Amino acid sequence: MDRRSFLRTSALGGTAAAASTLAAPAYAQGNRKLTMVTSWGRGLAGVFDAAQYCADKINALSDGTLEIEIKAAGELVGAFEVFDAVSSGQADMYHAADYYFINQHPGYAFFTSVPFGMTAQELMNWYYYAGGQELHDELGEVFNLKSFIAGNTGAQAGGWFRQEIKGPEDFNGLKFRMPGLGGQVLGELGASVQNLPGAEVYQALASGAIDGTEWIGPWADEKAGFQEITKTYYTAGMHEPGAGLSLATNREVFDSLSPAHQGIIEEVAKAAHSDNLALFLANNGAALERLQSGGVNVLEFPDTVWDAFGTAAATVNEQYMGDELYAKIHASYQDSMKKSSAWIQKSSGVYTAQRDRVLG
Amino acid sequence: MDRRSFLRTSALGGTAAAASTLAAPAYAQGNRKLTMVTSWGRGLAGVFDAAQYCADKINALSDGTLEIEIKAAGELVGAFEVFDAVSSGQADMYHAADYYFINQHPGYAFFTSVPFGMTAQELMNWYYYAGGQELHDELGEVFNLKSFIAGNTGAQAGGWFRQEIKGPEDFNGLKFRMPGLGGQVLGELGASVQNLPGAEVYQALASGAIDGTEWIGPWADEKAGFQEITKTYYTAGMHEPGAGLSLATNREVFDSLSPAHQGIIEEVAKAAHSDNLALFLANNGAALERLQSGGVNVLEFPDTVWDAFGTAAATVNEQYMGDELYAKIHASYQDSMKKSSAWIQKSSGVYTAQRDRVLG
Repeated sequence: MDRRSFLRTSALGGTAAAASTLAAPAYAQGNRKLTMVTSWGRGLAGVFDAAQYCADKINALSDGTLEIEIKAAGELVGAFEVFDAVSSGQADMYHAADYYFINQHPGYAFFTSVPFGMTAQELMNWYYYAGGQELHDELGEVFNLKSFIAGNTGAQAGGWFRQEIKGPEDFNGLKFRMPGLGGQVLGELGASVQNLPGAEVYQALASGAIDGTEWIGPWADEKAGFQEITKTYYTAGMHEPGAGLSLATNREVFDSLSPAHQGIIEEVAKAAHSDNLALFLANNGAALERLQSGGVNVLEFPDTVWDAFGTAAATVNEQYMGDELYAKIHASYQDSMKKSSAWIQKSSGVYTAQRDRVLG
Repeated sequence: MDRRSFLRTSALGGTAAAASTLAAPAYAQGNRKLTMVTSWGRGLAGVFDAAQYCADKINALSDGTLEIEIKAAGELVGAFEVFDAVSSGQADMYHAADYYFINQHPGYAFFTSVPFGMTAQELMNWYYYAGGQELHDELGEVFNLKSFIAGNTGAQAGGWFRQEIKGPEDFNGLKFRMPGLGGQVLGELGASVQNLPGAEVYQALASGAIDGTEWIGPWADEKAGFQEITKTYYTAGMHEPGAGLSLATNREVFDSLSPAHQGIIEEVAKAAHSDNLALFLANNGAALERLQSGGVNVLEFPDTVWDAFGTAAATVNEQYMGDELYAKIHASYQDSMKKSSAWIQKSSGVYTAQRDRVLG
């Protein structure tokens, strides 16, 4: 499929374009059908759900005039090939986690999550009101994309291990699945890090191809079935404190849409961002209880491990600071996080501590 | 304006309804124009912005086929009369905070905020994925409304006082502005509590008609100008840990809309919920710094005050538990909050504590 395929697959595009020559709009009129490729196996809990949510809502809000056809990972292109497919126009849009594409540009890490970075709420504050969306656009200009954050997993769990982690030295030689800059942090600690698509992780862990993995959190992890393989589970992690998912459209395709269709995509993405976060957070608590009832040992990393994570994260970040756009995004992100987190601690932080103390 | 006025004010309603007799849709076709009344003075920071956001996005996503005309408080009906106006069909929709309407039904408190209740994130988890929206609908059936949460201020500040609060006895006899069940909690402590619309609070505080007020948080409070009157400001409060704003449509009006228009209202409300929260949270940190630079003394209530708040909040809640629907909403809300807060503490809570410790 070439980058103009959306015109051929559009039900009314040709006719409407011919009929509206006098008005000469910059965008094609009439019904449109776009192909969405994703990094997700069909039905993968939470993440494929977010892609499906976007497709369903865009269809509904446009009264069927903008139809989105979803392709799961591997149906049109592979899980990690979606970026190049949409950038080149082979597909119209993708739903994925942008930190899968740090080899295209390391700045994409910030639009999913970076080690010791923002919580989901801090990410929203930055993205909508402190310059984040504009920087996503700036990356998009380089890669011919118009991107929106359109999903969020919340703070991800540290992951599944075959053996307890007693100190940073236990990561040395460990074969572990973790994407993004977080994976590079574990690499600094001597781990052999792999980035596998979600649909391939269970088999890799079961076969011993990897010693451990992070995936998302209790609800999605339980659905993936990792508790069948090992019982050692770490909750809080440093790697993805609030992982955004992205909906990115080929820029020419986006520019060819009517303002109403563009508005629908943007608004559905924004609603998906918080709706998907609520989906994960509403289900994680009960899932963790079920995992524990099933014999899973729920642990937290010791402070020595967090300290080593911190040192390694600074090293990883420093490697990219020579890139001007990365450094620009980093500065904006850190500035917003500092302001955001200070107020959240003073308000919600103090409140929830008092609520816990008073209600017992 | 009577409850059928939307048909008269609709540009194409009459014609389209006549033309589509054969298809016999349950909803009126064509362009529609709806009147939104609000509890907000025109331009009131954050809250009027949320109403404007909803109107603008509904207009844009519907390509102008669903036009929303906003009326600020007092332009058609008073700030607290919007509920009855929309319930009766005098206006088509309102944007307000539903706890203004606890005299209509105390269950409405849960859809803004209750003392020692949910943070904004916990509210979203409950509303979208643990039964909250369905209970909002159940209240709506009683009052002829279809409601959505469509804004959130985040955790509200304790408020502005003329004198420092050293213990719960300092609330005795205090004339204070606080709506909802939070205001009733202060009443239990002996305060004389008033519920004034936002646009009237500054004048009441300046004239001495009230001794103190809570409004929202640093950004909106600074815009309101309370720092010109007093310099004693409490940040975290018990009363509104994550205050939702509501967009409610007269039920017959909502039912008369096309599925696409209904979908647009629902999706815009959901996006407004998180967008508005990000607006407040992105601005509060810098505003608090400015207030402090301007001589405002930023304080936290002592534990003895929080303890007294806790006892009084339980008393206030107990007064309503005889109402079956209130008790049903309360049970659902408490169950969801317990599960939600436990996971958030284990994930984001542990993470942010480690982030603060490691990054210093």
